[in-house]
Amino acid sequence: MPVNQFQSGRHFLQIPGPTNVPDRVLRAMDKPTIDHRGPEFAALAGRCLDGIKTIFKTQSDVIIFPASGTGAWEAALVNTLQSGDHVLMVETGHFASLWHKMANKLGVVTEFLETDWRSGADPQALATRLFEDTTHQIKAVCVVHNETSTGCTSPIAKIRAVMDDINHPALLMVDTISSLASIDYRHDEWGVDVTVAGSQKGLLLPPGLSFNAVSQKALEVARSGGMPRSYWDWDEQIQANKNGAFPYTPATNLLYGLEVAIEMLHEEGLDTVFARHDRHAQTTRNAVQAWGLEILCQNPENYSSSLTAVVVPDGHDADAFREIVLKNFNMSLGNGLAKLAGKVFRIGHLGDFNDLMLLGTLSGVEMGLSLAGIPHQRGGVETAMQTLTKS
Amino acid sequence: MPVNQFQSGRHFLQIPGPTNVPDRVLRAMDKPTIDHRGPEFAALAGRCLDGIKTIFKTQSDVIIFPASGTGAWEAALVNTLQSGDHVLMVETGHFASLWHKMANKLGVVTEFLETDWRSGADPQALATRLFEDTTHQIKAVCVVHNETSTGCTSPIAKIRAVMDDINHPALLMVDTISSLASIDYRHDEWGVDVTVAGSQKGLLLPPGLSFNAVSQKALEVARSGGMPRSYWDWDEQIQANKNGAFPYTPATNLLYGLEVAIEMLHEEGLDTVFARHDRHAQTTRNAVQAWGLEILCQNPENYSSSLTAVVVPDGHDADAFREIVLKNFNMSLGNGLAKLAGKVFRIGHLGDFNDLMLLGTLSGVEMGLSLAGIPHQRGGVETAMQTLTKS
Repeated sequence: MPVNQFQSGRHFLQIPGPTNVPDRVLRAMDKPTIDHRGPEFAALAGRCLDGIKTIFKTQSDVIIFPASGTGAWEAALVNTLQSGDHVLMVETGHFASLWHKMANKLGVVTEFLETDWRSGADPQALATRLFEDTTHQIKAVCVVHNETSTGCTSPIAKIRAVMDDINHPALLMVDTISSLASIDYRHDEWGVDVTVAGSQKGLLLPPGLSFNAVSQKALEVARSGGMPRSYWDWDEQIQANKNGAFPYTPATNLLYGLEVAIEMLHEEGLDTVFARHDRHAQTTRNAVQAWGLEILCQNPENYSSSLTAVVVPDGHDADAFREIVLKNFNMSLGNGLAKLAGKVFRIGHLGDFNDLMLLGTLSGVEMGLSLAGIPHQRGGVETAMQTLTKS
Repeated sequence: MPVNQFQSGRHFLQIPGPTNVPDRVLRAMDKPTIDHRGPEFAALAGRCLDGIKTIFKTQSDVIIFPASGTGAWEAALVNTLQSGDHVLMVETGHFASLWHKMANKLGVVTEFLETDWRSGADPQALATRLFEDTTHQIKAVCVVHNETSTGCTSPIAKIRAVMDDINHPALLMVDTISSLASIDYRHDEWGVDVTVAGSQKGLLLPPGLSFNAVSQKALEVARSGGMPRSYWDWDEQIQANKNGAFPYTPATNLLYGLEVAIEMLHEEGLDTVFARHDRHAQTTRNAVQAWGLEILCQNPENYSSSLTAVVVPDGHDADAFREIVLKNFNMSLGNGLAKLAGKVFRIGHLGDFNDLMLLGTLSGVEMGLSLAGIPHQRGGVETAMQTLTKS
């Protein structure tokens, strides 16, 4: 059936974000916008600014920008780096590459540690490079915690440990856009200086808010340095935030939603949220293996609990498969990005999700594989049901 | 996990109604209530009163009551029958029994043709009884089109045909509460005198509206007879409806939803809606057969496309199974009613529904059967996927 025909029932939005927004969050946003200089707003802002710290697991300031995640990348760079500063980044995949490209455009001198886009950052490779940097030319190390294009995570705590081992003073900046509130993350405990996040994945919101959690050290660097900046300036935000205000018009209705999303994450319990994502990811991998297909991520230590990227056998087109799934089963799966285009599809299993939604999702994949004539064994859904009833 | 814990993702509401209300209908109702004597309301009422006729497939009047389906049963009886009048009803299951009980309470003299609750009404049995009624003492024949307690339909066109064959003047009154807008139904073509329906099943709305489609013949009977009545009086409704008004306060916001629900049913196309329900019902039956379980309905001609009632093997408790499914998978299945209590569970596959929602549903049943220790073969979901990709 063509896409423009009437579609009964719910769309399955199984890209790795934006994710399904819970009704409770939608209803919370479905209210009149209020005066962002008034007392009601100040109280709301206070609750959001305090609450979001518990999600990043930080005592430090978290800046909330009315912007998409890309904006929070830029904010991390322009507050801490000057034109000509050196940064070390890891090419974990497409999103790391975009962050890298942005840094270059802003005049930062980048070094980009290659990977094969099938694993996360290697702490040892970072250690080797940082060890050579005896003059501490490298001002920041930038890593993507969960690479949304590949379904590979990087071990942030280990990366911090190697930096500490060699006493390298570079800032550690981490993109958690597709991991925050889905995969365990600890800004303070792991000694991250700048954490970048967005609203539209584990945070259960539509796109439109992004975040920087900022260590004291990063804040000090920013106060005495960084690039000429205005919109992204941390200090102006922090000063305004003290009174429950923002230096320019905030995205009020998304903040209504943010307050409720934080509430929901704590009602479920962050550990339960992470365990749920782990369980659904393991179930998905078991299904992929039962189909006899290859998981893109080759290092089990780097398996992502937010999404699973699946390699389509040579001679088959992942995008043609995705189109069949969309047309026949009203489900959106993630496409392969950049050099993975046509070669992989990505199953998002993050955010507001449960067992039967996952099984509907995996059923759509399994039926789509049949309809697309992609060689596979049946039994992925069967295996998934067994995994879910045993765990 | 206990029911009172936080539940991520969507609830699977797979009872045979009330059904999942589409967001588009929810949003349509999410507006301020307007003056029900004003011109804006009159235009809305006109669109609803005209539009609903296309769903019943009738040119006659359709009365809309702010009431649940039970109210529309009562309206059918009190407008057409007097105390002491004889009616012939068919005991297709629990809901037919409730309608029968109501008729008795209202002073109607009822005859109740038994069935085993595993098939629909038998036109031949009705014909035999009506043929004996040479003095035309029987004033109405009451049949449930789709018996929600058993998942058996009754052949309304055939019942009309046998009544016509013997020229019996009784009114034909049909309950379509769980069939309208899910299973093909034709008020005019099938010569039905009073059709009873409710808002909360195939009509995609929350409960709160019910309907009587009324033939000219039934209207004439009502004008000269019936019981003392006020709330349920057809004539007062019809007079008021001519000006887009109702004789008492209508359920305004449900009418906002009704207008959009009718629009949606026509956008999908009624024939497509029926074919979708048929396909999902066939898929469900194939799954049940693959599990090696018994479908309650024993006559394939009477299989319901709205729901499937499944018999649990002796020595097992369907309600314990349903509780396990609710606790583990956040899915509500229908219980066995009256003499079927504990013996069957009912899978609703009607309303705003699609393939992946069905597969999530069937996965929840299959996993629940395992967890409840109910003897079955695996492979129901696998069979369902094969059915859906082949049809």
